[in-house]
Amino acid sequence: MKGTAAIVGGGVIGGGWTARFLLNGWNVRVFDPDPEAERKIGDVLSNARHGLPMLYDCALPPEGALSFHPSIGEAVEGAEWIQESVPERLELKHATLAEIQAACDPLAVIGSSTSGFKPSTLQQGAARPEQIIVTHPFNPVYLLPLVEVVSSGQTAPSILAKTKAILGAMGMHPLVVRAEIDAHIADRLLEAVWRESLWMIDDGIATTQEIDDAIRFGFGLRWAQMGLFETYRIAGGEAGMEHFIRQFGPALQWPWTKLMDVPELTEELIHKLVDLSNAQSGHMTIRELERKRDNNLVAMLRALKQQGSAAGRLLLDHERRLRPALAPAANLMTARRVVPTDWTDLNGHMNESRYGQVFSDAAEAVMALVGADEDYIASGLSYFTVETETKFLAETHAGERFVVHTRVTEGARKKIRCFHEMRRETDGTLLATCDQLMIHVDLAKRRACEPPEVVQQKIEALAALHASAGGLPDA
Amino acid sequence: MKGTAAIVGGGVIGGGWTARFLLNGWNVRVFDPDPEAERKIGDVLSNARHGLPMLYDCALPPEGALSFHPSIGEAVEGAEWIQESVPERLELKHATLAEIQAACDPLAVIGSSTSGFKPSTLQQGAARPEQIIVTHPFNPVYLLPLVEVVSSGQTAPSILAKTKAILGAMGMHPLVVRAEIDAHIADRLLEAVWRESLWMIDDGIATTQEIDDAIRFGFGLRWAQMGLFETYRIAGGEAGMEHFIRQFGPALQWPWTKLMDVPELTEELIHKLVDLSNAQSGHMTIRELERKRDNNLVAMLRALKQQGSAAGRLLLDHERRLRPALAPAANLMTARRVVPTDWTDLNGHMNESRYGQVFSDAAEAVMALVGADEDYIASGLSYFTVETETKFLAETHAGERFVVHTRVTEGARKKIRCFHEMRRETDGTLLATCDQLMIHVDLAKRRACEPPEVVQQKIEALAALHASAGGLPDA
Repeated sequence: MKGTAAIVGGGVIGGGWTARFLLNGWNVRVFDPDPEAERKIGDVLSNARHGLPMLYDCALPPEGALSFHPSIGEAVEGAEWIQESVPERLELKHATLAEIQAACDPLAVIGSSTSGFKPSTLQQGAARPEQIIVTHPFNPVYLLPLVEVVSSGQTAPSILAKTKAILGAMGMHPLVVRAEIDAHIADRLLEAVWRESLWMIDDGIATTQEIDDAIRFGFGLRWAQMGLFETYRIAGGEAGMEHFIRQFGPALQWPWTKLMDVPELTEELIHKLVDLSNAQSGHMTIRELERKRDNNLVAMLRALKQQGSAAGRLLLDHERRLRPALAPAANLMTARRVVPTDWTDLNGHMNESRYGQVFSDAAEAVMALVGADEDYIASGLSYFTVETETKFLAETHAGERFVVHTRVTEGARKKIRCFHEMRRETDGTLLATCDQLMIHVDLAKRRACEPPEVVQQKIEALAALHASAGGLPDA
Repeated sequence: MKGTAAIVGGGVIGGGWTARFLLNGWNVRVFDPDPEAERKIGDVLSNARHGLPMLYDCALPPEGALSFHPSIGEAVEGAEWIQESVPERLELKHATLAEIQAACDPLAVIGSSTSGFKPSTLQQGAARPEQIIVTHPFNPVYLLPLVEVVSSGQTAPSILAKTKAILGAMGMHPLVVRAEIDAHIADRLLEAVWRESLWMIDDGIATTQEIDDAIRFGFGLRWAQMGLFETYRIAGGEAGMEHFIRQFGPALQWPWTKLMDVPELTEELIHKLVDLSNAQSGHMTIRELERKRDNNLVAMLRALKQQGSAAGRLLLDHERRLRPALAPAANLMTARRVVPTDWTDLNGHMNESRYGQVFSDAAEAVMALVGADEDYIASGLSYFTVETETKFLAETHAGERFVVHTRVTEGARKKIRCFHEMRRETDGTLLATCDQLMIHVDLAKRRACEPPEVVQQKIEALAALHASAGGLPDA
């Protein structure tokens, strides 16, 4: 499903919509009176072209055509979707919608990015209220899937259906809000946190950094994959949501926030909550939910570790202290660890592609041992792998412990060759082997060169030790 | 840094502390009067033993010794750290702390897991108030790094220093809260969202599922890596936090939440906020922050995709619709995509281990083409890779597009052999090749077997087509 979208208002949000449509193959026609609009949208597009295609393990469709137009009337011509993202002032929204409706196809969707206004408020005085709907996205629009979709009694059901279909086809999640309220759902939660946070800043309790850390090292990680209620269902233990609400309900009367306009905790509210939570998550036991939560957390934390960001940076620091120092030995143990959940297919077997990771890490341990460590690489020299021959001998699963032993089989001038054996730790089963050839490289010239004498000597000593040891030990 | 920890109260939180200490090599002595405590802690430990070691790319230290004790006095004997996690009732906390102090080392840290009480409240009537401190963790304690550390004027500075050092050595993030308030920092934010959410349930605006979706498909993903303020600094564009607060400040007076006890937005508060945000993130431009945010989001979303969970499930669905159907051809394009950020080292080069991923995916496309697709695997048959020979010829970077062409070079009975060529799409540079041998396997018996005739015929036809085409096309 592809067509033409018109973007009215090209700020951070309008630019994000432009990118989401364009990279999903739609033609996009932009109107924004700001003379800088084209540059600003170009900036957003450059981020989107970097990020969005990376989410997928196949190519996105070819980009649509992008054009800029001097008037709303010209921009909306022939568009199946018109997205209004002008500043949050009602009279401006009304004037913009009137101008859009004066020129657009009466069957087009007119979505408003409004954070706060209800659709019925936007529809006041409109020529065709039935084609106006709230489609509230989240920044960055090209990466985050959520769109709050809010219709009023006047919005045509066909417009709602078309809205859901088009957003879904672009990989977004249209969350249909069942009743109109100011600020819809997500921004009510955000506003509550924002107000509480401003109190803490105002009262000198915490800095912005400390509040951010309190979120991203703790509950932010839970919310990214489960949200609030499913997380609390787990916290209630085997008795689930009912236990949780009866235990923590009384805190509603305590000064745990400065925001004290609380709902009354009636039995009716308790039962409503429990029923909704059962409908949402009742098909899984608490234990299953816990395992799912933990696997999601492990995968996300490892993703952040790979980026060196947020909670992932803590992991890197901790790991640096955990990793044992390696000494030259006939029996060189270059890895010892478990198979993490993000290395497996959906059946829990370690994916064949991750054996490459195992042996690459083992080689890195050997490199560090001979002095070709992080500092060495920073100085402009390194070893590059040029060839590997891998044999896959037995399967392994998420959580299983394994060890890798490595022998240096060749180490002369520019070359170093390693032979790795990966074994299950519990029973010594040989899981895989790898014969790996590396060459020494000048990183500036991107060309092979000889390593410094001190490194060369260590490699030769190791190769001699391993040759005289006559092969790898039995596990 | 390892020693002995005593855990007083072994519920979800106490069990989580037990796991965090034990798996970091500490001996742990538990007191809990619940006859089910040992089983319950065993359940938490089994989750922790699955999850925590997976975070690291090396082994954790050997586990410490776990023991259960019939009295608080016996449990705390000889412990350097005592963690109190009894229910949130002040008289119970006071009685428990008194019993702990009657038997414990006066130099030990006594940390309380309290969600709401201030340390000075807990210290009332204590024999040695100076050794009591709040150490408030987040569930699951064995995976989430955040611990809010709150001391009062009576807490000894040496206890605070020891607390930070021990938590840090276990990979946790001790967030020292600079002033005592009810519910510290994180629970104030949680409580605000909880109250607002209960209003929405009570008013019939949204279900628990819809509120969770509004979080996990949107701002939850932002918060997991940046929190609130750094996210809003970006939303303010080049003018940062000052622009944001002046633009959205007026909303504090709007009914965007039912929680209306708001702080007054004075110039002083605005400047305080801007200064704090500058101190936190001013060393990076908005553009750098955006790129960092986007890379984190891509890596986390891909982690969730690999788990088939939350926003990752949406991506899988979208990808299924994006992926082109492959037809038998002399020139078989088995992959076309970009290098995602989670496949690279910190310098943005594609890590050598990911070439295995590329060729494994390419082989999967060939398998699907001959009928050995997901349904086939579900029926109990599959192909396993037994050997690969990979040549690494040129480098590639995050964001670069590449294609893989595959030729079936052998396809008889149980065997199939593929030769893959991976090229940069823009200039056709050959990046790597892989010669891959697979055998057909009965998944129940985990043993080689012949494929059904219909699959065998398709493989032979493909091998014949590729043999007659005489090699791969030039790019």
